Amino acid sequence: MKKKEYLEIREEALKYFEKARIVLTEKEIENFEVADFGLNRKDIGLQLIVYVNTDRVCAKEMVLFPGQTCPEHIHPPVHGESGKEETFRCRYGKVFIYVSGNKTENAHCKPPKGNESYYTAWHEIELAPGEQYTLKPGTKHWFQAGQEGTVISEFSTKSRDEFDIFTNPDIKRIPKIEE
Amino acid sequence: MKKKEYLEIREEALKYFEKARIVLTEKEIENFEVADFGLNRKDIGLQLIVYVNTDRVCAKEMVLFPGQTCPEHIHPPVHGESGKEETFRCRYGKVFIYVSGNKTENAHCKPPKGNESYYTAWHEIELAPGEQYTLKPGTKHWFQAGQEGTVISEFSTKSRDEFDIFTNPDIKRIPKIEE
Repeated sequence: MKKKEYLEIREEALKYFEKARIVLTEKEIENFEVADFGLNRKDIGLQLIVYVNTDRVCAKEMVLFPGQTCPEHIHPPVHGESGKEETFRCRYGKVFIYVSGNKTENAHCKPPKGNESYYTAWHEIELAPGEQYTLKPGTKHWFQAGQEGTVISEFSTKSRDEFDIFTNPDIKRIPKIEE
Repeated sequence: MKKKEYLEIREEALKYFEKARIVLTEKEIENFEVADFGLNRKDIGLQLIVYVNTDRVCAKEMVLFPGQTCPEHIHPPVHGESGKEETFRCRYGKVFIYVSGNKTENAHCKPPKGNESYYTAWHEIELAPGEQYTLKPGTKHWFQAGQEGTVISEFSTKSRDEFDIFTNPDIKRIPKIEE
Protein backbone atom coordinates (compact mmCIF):
# COMPACT_ATOMS: atom_id res chain seq x y z
CA MET A 1 0.00 0.00 0.00
CA LYS A 2 1.20 3.49 -0.85
CA LYS A 3 1.66 5.94 2.01
CA LYS A 4 -0.80 8.39 0.43
CA GLU A 5 -3.49 5.73 0.26
CA TYR A 6 -2.77 4.68 3.86
CA LEU A 7 -3.22 8.27 5.05
CA GLU A 8 -6.49 8.69 3.17
CA ILE A 9 -7.95 5.49 4.61
CA ARG A 10 -6.77 6.48 8.10
CA GLU A 11 -8.44 9.88 7.85
CA GLU A 12 -11.69 8.27 6.77
CA ALA A 13 -11.51 5.70 9.61
CA LEU A 14 -10.89 8.41 12.22
CA LYS A 15 -14.28 9.90 11.35
CA TYR A 16 -15.90 6.69 12.56
CA PHE A 17 -14.04 6.85 15.88
CA GLU A 18 -15.39 10.39 16.22
CA LYS A 19 -18.92 9.16 15.55
CA ALA A 20 -18.42 6.54 18.28
CA ARG A 21 -16.95 9.27 20.55
CA ILE A 22 -13.76 7.30 21.09
CA VAL A 23 -10.82 9.47 22.10
CA LEU A 24 -7.36 8.51 20.80
CA THR A 25 -3.89 9.87 21.47
CA GLU A 26 -1.64 11.32 18.77
CA LYS A 27 0.72 8.38 19.21
CA GLU A 28 -2.10 5.91 18.66
CA ILE A 29 -3.10 7.72 15.49
CA GLU A 30 0.52 7.57 14.28
CA ASN A 31 0.50 3.81 14.82
CA PHE A 32 -2.87 3.36 13.16
CA GLU A 33 -3.06 0.10 11.22
CA VAL A 34 -4.74 -0.32 7.86
CA ALA A 35 -4.99 -3.99 6.92
CA ASP A 36 -5.71 -4.57 3.25
CA PHE A 37 -4.80 -8.27 3.49
CA GLY A 38 -2.68 -7.84 0.38
CA LEU A 39 -5.76 -8.01 -1.85
CA ASN A 40 -5.85 -4.38 -2.97
CA ARG A 41 -9.64 -4.05 -3.00
CA LYS A 42 -11.65 -1.60 -0.90
CA ASP A 43 -14.42 -4.01 0.09
CA ILE A 44 -12.00 -6.26 2.03
CA GLY A 45 -10.07 -4.65 4.85
CA LEU A 46 -9.88 -3.59 8.46
CA GLN A 47 -8.76 -0.38 10.15
CA LEU A 48 -7.54 -0.59 13.73
CA ILE A 49 -5.84 0.83 16.80
CA VAL A 50 -4.08 -1.61 19.11
CA TYR A 51 -4.45 -0.30 22.66
CA VAL A 52 -2.40 -3.00 24.33
CA ASN A 53 -0.95 -6.38 23.35
CA THR A 54 1.06 -8.12 26.06
CA ASP A 55 1.81 -11.84 26.42
CA ARG A 56 -1.55 -12.27 28.14
CA VAL A 57 -4.03 -9.60 27.06
CA CYS A 58 -4.88 -7.60 23.96
CA ALA A 59 -7.39 -4.81 23.35
CA LYS A 60 -8.11 -3.13 20.02
CA GLU A 61 -10.58 -0.70 18.50
CA MET A 62 -11.56 -1.49 14.92
CA VAL A 63 -13.39 0.26 12.07
CA LEU A 64 -15.02 -1.36 9.06
CA PHE A 65 -16.39 0.91 6.36
CA PRO A 66 -19.96 0.36 5.10
CA GLY A 67 -20.23 -3.17 3.72
CA GLN A 68 -16.51 -3.85 4.23
CA THR A 69 -15.46 -7.41 5.10
CA CYS A 70 -12.76 -8.82 7.36
CA PRO A 71 -12.04 -12.10 5.57
CA GLU A 72 -12.55 -15.59 7.00
CA HIS A 73 -9.81 -16.88 9.26
CA ILE A 74 -8.99 -18.93 12.32
CA HIS A 75 -6.56 -18.37 15.22
CA PRO A 76 -4.55 -21.58 15.67
CA PRO A 77 -2.80 -22.71 18.86
CA VAL A 78 0.70 -21.14 19.05
CA HIS A 79 3.67 -22.44 21.08
CA GLY A 80 1.42 -24.94 22.87
CA GLU A 81 -1.06 -22.26 23.97
CA SER A 82 -4.72 -22.38 22.93
CA GLY A 83 -5.68 -20.18 19.99
CA LYS A 84 -6.72 -16.57 20.49
CA GLU A 85 -10.00 -16.04 22.32
CA GLU A 86 -11.78 -12.83 21.38
CA THR A 87 -14.82 -10.82 22.36
CA PHE A 88 -16.23 -8.34 19.84
CA ARG A 89 -18.28 -5.48 21.23
CA CYS A 90 -20.13 -3.22 18.80
CA ARG A 91 -19.79 0.50 19.61
CA TYR A 92 -21.28 2.09 16.51
CA GLY A 93 -23.29 0.97 13.48
CA LYS A 94 -23.89 -2.71 13.00
CA VAL A 95 -21.67 -5.72 12.45
CA PHE A 96 -22.57 -9.19 11.21
CA ILE A 97 -20.23 -11.94 12.41
CA TYR A 98 -20.24 -15.33 10.70
CA VAL A 99 -18.92 -18.35 12.59
CA SER A 100 -18.74 -22.05 11.89
CA GLY A 101 -21.88 -23.89 13.02
CA ASN A 102 -25.52 -24.11 11.94
CA LYS A 103 -26.03 -22.13 8.76
CA THR A 104 -28.32 -19.10 9.14
CA GLU A 105 -30.93 -19.01 6.37
CA ASN A 106 -31.31 -15.64 4.59
CA ALA A 107 -28.09 -14.22 6.04
CA HIS A 108 -27.80 -10.42 5.84
CA CYS A 109 -24.42 -10.37 4.06
CA LYS A 110 -22.85 -11.63 0.87
CA PRO A 111 -19.18 -12.57 0.60
CA PRO A 112 -16.93 -10.27 -1.47
CA LYS A 113 -17.49 -10.88 -5.19
CA GLY A 114 -15.35 -13.55 -6.83
CA ASN A 115 -14.20 -14.76 -3.37
CA GLU A 116 -17.32 -16.76 -2.53
CA SER A 117 -15.48 -20.05 -2.08
CA TYR A 118 -13.33 -18.55 0.69
CA TYR A 119 -16.36 -17.90 2.90
CA THR A 120 -17.54 -21.15 4.48
CA ALA A 121 -18.81 -20.11 7.96
CA TRP A 122 -22.48 -19.11 7.82
CA HIS A 123 -23.84 -19.00 11.35
CA GLU A 124 -24.79 -15.32 11.70
CA ILE A 125 -24.50 -13.13 14.79
CA GLU A 126 -25.81 -9.58 14.46
CA LEU A 127 -24.46 -6.94 16.84
CA ALA A 128 -25.85 -3.45 17.44
CA PRO A 129 -24.14 -0.90 19.74
CA GLY A 130 -23.74 -2.31 23.27
CA GLU A 131 -24.00 -5.91 22.08
CA GLN A 132 -21.10 -8.32 22.05
CA TYR A 133 -20.08 -11.89 21.22
CA THR A 134 -17.24 -14.07 22.47
CA LEU A 135 -15.49 -16.37 19.98
CA LYS A 136 -13.97 -19.52 21.41
CA PRO A 137 -10.49 -20.46 20.13
CA GLY A 138 -10.57 -22.50 16.92
CA THR A 139 -13.79 -20.95 15.58
CA LYS A 140 -13.59 -20.10 11.89
CA HIS A 141 -15.04 -16.60 11.43
CA TRP A 142 -15.41 -13.52 9.25
CA PHE A 143 -17.36 -10.31 9.68
CA GLN A 144 -18.89 -7.52 7.67
CA ALA A 145 -20.12 -4.02 8.53
CA GLY A 146 -23.70 -2.92 7.94
CA GLN A 147 -24.50 0.03 5.68
CA GLU A 148 -23.46 2.68 8.23
CA GLY A 149 -20.05 1.09 8.81
CA THR A 150 -19.11 -0.06 12.29
CA VAL A 151 -16.78 0.49 15.24
CA ILE A 152 -15.96 -2.63 17.26
CA SER A 153 -13.92 -3.09 20.45
CA GLU A 154 -12.00 -6.33 20.72
CA PHE A 155 -10.93 -7.82 24.07
CA SER A 156 -8.74 -10.90 23.64
CA THR A 157 -5.74 -12.98 24.56
CA LYS A 158 -2.46 -12.05 22.86
CA SER A 159 -2.75 -11.12 19.18
CA ARG A 160 -0.34 -12.95 16.91
CA ASP A 161 -1.74 -11.85 13.57
CA GLU A 162 1.18 -13.42 11.70
CA PHE A 163 -0.10 -16.90 12.70
CA ASP A 164 -3.72 -16.37 11.56
CA ILE A 165 -4.85 -18.86 8.93
CA PHE A 166 -7.03 -17.37 6.20
CA THR A 167 -9.32 -19.48 4.03
CA ASN A 168 -8.17 -17.45 1.00
CA PRO A 169 -4.53 -18.52 0.41
CA ASP A 170 -3.74 -15.24 -1.39
CA ILE A 171 -4.13 -13.20 1.80
CA LYS A 172 -1.15 -11.60 3.48
CA ARG A 173 -2.14 -10.30 6.91
CA ILE A 174 0.87 -8.11 7.63
CA PRO A 175 0.69 -4.94 5.50
CA LYS A 176 3.56 -3.20 3.78
CA ILE A 177 3.50 0.59 3.54
CA GLU A 178 5.52 1.95 0.61
CA GLU A 179 6.72 5.54 0.50
CA MET B 1 -26.04 -2.13 51.08
CA LYS B 2 -29.80 -1.58 50.83
CA LYS B 3 -31.40 -2.17 47.44
CA LYS B 4 -32.72 1.42 47.36
CA GLU B 5 -29.22 2.82 47.86
CA TYR B 6 -27.82 0.46 45.21
CA LEU B 7 -30.39 1.69 42.69
CA GLU B 8 -29.66 5.35 43.45
CA ILE B 9 -25.92 4.88 43.00
CA ARG B 10 -26.48 2.91 39.80
CA GLU B 11 -28.66 5.67 38.36
CA GLU B 12 -26.03 8.26 39.16
CA ALA B 13 -23.26 6.11 37.62
CA LEU B 14 -25.24 5.57 34.41
CA LYS B 15 -25.13 9.33 33.83
CA TYR B 16 -21.34 9.07 33.56
CA PHE B 17 -21.58 6.30 30.98
CA GLU B 18 -23.88 8.61 29.02
CA LYS B 19 -21.34 11.42 29.25
CA ALA B 20 -18.70 9.02 27.91
CA ARG B 21 -21.18 7.90 25.20
CA ILE B 22 -20.86 4.27 26.20
CA VAL B 23 -23.84 2.17 25.16
CA LEU B 24 -24.96 -0.62 27.50
CA THR B 25 -27.60 -3.33 27.19
CA GLU B 26 -30.52 -3.70 29.61
CA LYS B 27 -29.02 -6.95 30.87
CA GLU B 28 -25.71 -5.25 31.63
CA ILE B 29 -27.54 -2.53 33.57
CA GLU B 30 -29.40 -5.22 35.56
CA ASN B 31 -26.04 -6.78 36.49
CA PHE B 32 -24.47 -3.43 37.35
CA GLU B 33 -22.06 -3.74 40.27
CA VAL B 34 -21.70 -1.19 43.06
CA ALA B 35 -18.67 -1.95 45.22
CA ASP B 36 -18.70 -0.17 48.55
CA PHE B 37 -15.93 -2.38 49.94
CA GLY B 38 -18.01 -2.88 53.07
CA LEU B 39 -16.95 0.52 54.39
CA ASN B 40 -20.27 2.35 54.00
CA ARG B 41 -18.77 5.70 53.02
CA LYS B 42 -19.42 7.54 49.76
CA ASP B 43 -15.85 8.63 49.12
CA ILE B 44 -14.60 5.02 48.80
CA GLY B 45 -16.22 2.91 46.12
CA LEU B 46 -16.38 1.77 42.54
CA GLN B 47 -19.23 1.34 40.07
CA LEU B 48 -18.78 -1.11 37.23
CA ILE B 49 -20.08 -3.20 34.35
CA VAL B 50 -18.28 -6.46 33.61
CA TYR B 51 -18.39 -7.00 29.85
CA VAL B 52 -16.65 -10.36 29.84
CA ASN B 53 -14.68 -12.46 32.34
CA THR B 54 -13.51 -15.82 31.02
CA ASP B 55 -10.62 -17.98 32.27
CA ARG B 56 -8.26 -15.92 30.09
CA VAL B 57 -9.62 -12.41 29.48
CA CYS B 58 -11.65 -9.79 31.31
CA ALA B 59 -13.00 -6.40 30.22
CA LYS B 60 -14.88 -3.92 32.40
CA GLU B 61 -16.16 -0.37 32.27
CA MET B 62 -15.85 1.53 35.55
CA VAL B 63 -17.15 4.79 37.01
CA LEU B 64 -15.73 6.73 39.93
CA PHE B 65 -17.64 9.75 41.18
CA PRO B 66 -15.80 13.07 41.69
CA GLY B 67 -12.99 12.51 44.18
CA GLN B 68 -14.03 8.92 44.85
CA THR B 69 -11.28 6.40 45.66
CA CYS B 70 -10.82 2.72 44.81
CA PRO B 71 -8.77 1.59 47.81
CA GLU B 72 -5.23 0.21 47.71
CA HIS B 73 -4.90 -3.46 46.83
CA ILE B 74 -2.82 -6.06 45.04
CA HIS B 75 -3.76 -9.01 42.82
CA PRO B 76 -1.86 -12.05 44.09
CA PRO B 77 -0.98 -15.16 42.08
CA VAL B 78 -3.91 -17.65 42.13
CA HIS B 79 -3.73 -21.40 41.51
CA GLY B 80 -0.13 -21.07 40.32
CA GLU B 81 -0.98 -18.41 37.73
CA SER B 82 0.60 -14.93 37.83
CA GLY B 83 -1.51 -12.21 39.43
CA LYS B 84 -3.97 -10.20 37.36
CA GLU B 85 -2.45 -7.90 34.75
CA GLU B 86 -4.58 -4.87 33.97
CA THR B 87 -4.63 -1.91 31.63
CA PHE B 88 -6.67 1.15 32.62
CA ARG B 89 -7.82 3.43 29.81
CA CYS B 90 -9.44 6.73 30.71
CA ARG B 91 -12.57 7.50 28.66
CA TYR B 92 -13.98 10.51 30.49
CA GLY B 93 -12.78 12.96 33.16
CA LYS B 94 -9.49 12.31 34.82
CA VAL B 95 -8.09 9.52 36.98
CA PHE B 96 -5.01 9.50 39.18
CA ILE B 97 -3.48 6.04 39.70
CA TYR B 98 -0.98 5.46 42.50
CA VAL B 99 1.40 2.52 42.25
CA SER B 100 4.31 1.26 44.32
CA GLY B 101 7.61 2.84 43.25
CA ASN B 102 9.24 6.27 43.44
CA LYS B 103 7.07 8.63 45.41
CA THR B 104 5.66 11.55 43.40
CA GLU B 105 6.14 14.84 45.23
CA ASN B 106 3.06 17.05 45.49
CA ALA B 107 0.67 14.31 44.42
CA HIS B 108 -2.75 15.53 43.24
CA CYS B 109 -4.79 13.33 45.59
CA LYS B 110 -5.20 12.75 49.29
CA PRO B 111 -6.19 9.37 50.77
CA PRO B 112 -9.70 9.08 52.28
CA LYS B 113 -9.79 10.74 55.72
CA GLY B 114 -8.88 8.55 58.67
CA ASN B 115 -7.60 5.83 56.32
CA GLU B 116 -4.23 7.44 55.57
CA SER B 117 -2.19 4.49 56.84
CA TYR B 118 -3.83 2.17 54.31
CA TYR B 119 -2.45 4.16 51.36
CA THR B 120 1.24 3.37 50.89
CA ALA B 121 1.78 3.53 47.09
CA TRP B 122 2.62 7.06 45.97
CA HIS B 123 3.98 6.92 42.45
CA GLU B 124 1.37 8.95 40.53
CA ILE B 125 0.10 8.34 37.01
CA GLU B 126 -2.38 10.88 35.66
CA LEU B 127 -4.70 9.80 32.85
CA ALA B 128 -6.89 12.03 30.68
CA PRO B 129 -9.31 10.63 28.05
CA GLY B 130 -7.48 8.45 25.52
CA GLU B 131 -4.57 7.82 27.88
CA GLN B 132 -3.87 4.46 29.49
CA TYR B 133 -1.53 2.61 31.81
CA THR B 134 -0.70 -1.08 32.18
CA LEU B 135 -0.14 -2.47 35.69
CA LYS B 136 2.15 -5.46 35.94
CA PRO B 137 1.04 -8.27 38.28
CA GLY B 138 2.04 -7.75 41.88
CA THR B 139 1.92 -3.94 41.75
CA LYS B 140 0.23 -2.40 44.78
CA HIS B 141 -2.17 0.29 43.56
CA TRP B 142 -5.15 2.54 44.25
CA PHE B 143 -6.86 5.23 42.21
CA GLN B 144 -8.99 8.30 42.60
CA ALA B 145 -11.19 10.30 40.22
CA GLY B 146 -10.59 13.97 39.48
CA GLN B 147 -13.25 16.57 40.22
CA GLU B 148 -15.40 15.70 37.17
CA GLY B 149 -15.50 12.00 38.06
CA THR B 150 -14.15 9.47 35.60
CA VAL B 151 -15.01 6.57 33.30
CA ILE B 152 -12.27 3.97 32.85
CA SER B 153 -12.09 0.87 30.66
CA GLU B 154 -10.16 -2.06 32.08
CA PHE B 155 -8.60 -4.76 29.89
CA SER B 156 -7.12 -7.60 31.93
CA THR B 157 -6.54 -11.26 32.59
CA LYS B 158 -9.27 -13.08 34.53
CA SER B 159 -10.77 -11.09 37.43
CA ARG B 160 -10.91 -12.97 40.70
CA ASP B 161 -11.96 -10.11 42.96
CA GLU B 162 -12.43 -12.45 45.92
CA PHE B 163 -8.64 -13.02 46.02
CA ASP B 164 -7.66 -9.32 46.02
CA ILE B 165 -5.62 -8.27 49.04
CA PHE B 166 -6.49 -4.83 50.40
CA THR B 167 -4.14 -2.84 52.61
CA ASN B 168 -7.10 -1.94 54.83
CA PRO B 169 -8.04 -5.19 56.63
CA ASP B 170 -11.63 -4.00 57.19
CA ILE B 171 -12.43 -4.12 53.47
CA LYS B 172 -14.81 -6.72 52.07
CA ARG B 173 -14.66 -6.69 48.27
CA ILE B 174 -17.75 -8.75 47.51
CA PRO B 175 -20.85 -6.62 48.20
CA LYS B 176 -24.09 -7.78 49.77
CA ILE B 177 -27.35 -6.26 48.55
CA GLU B 178 -30.15 -6.38 51.13
CA GLU B 179 -33.82 -6.07 50.14
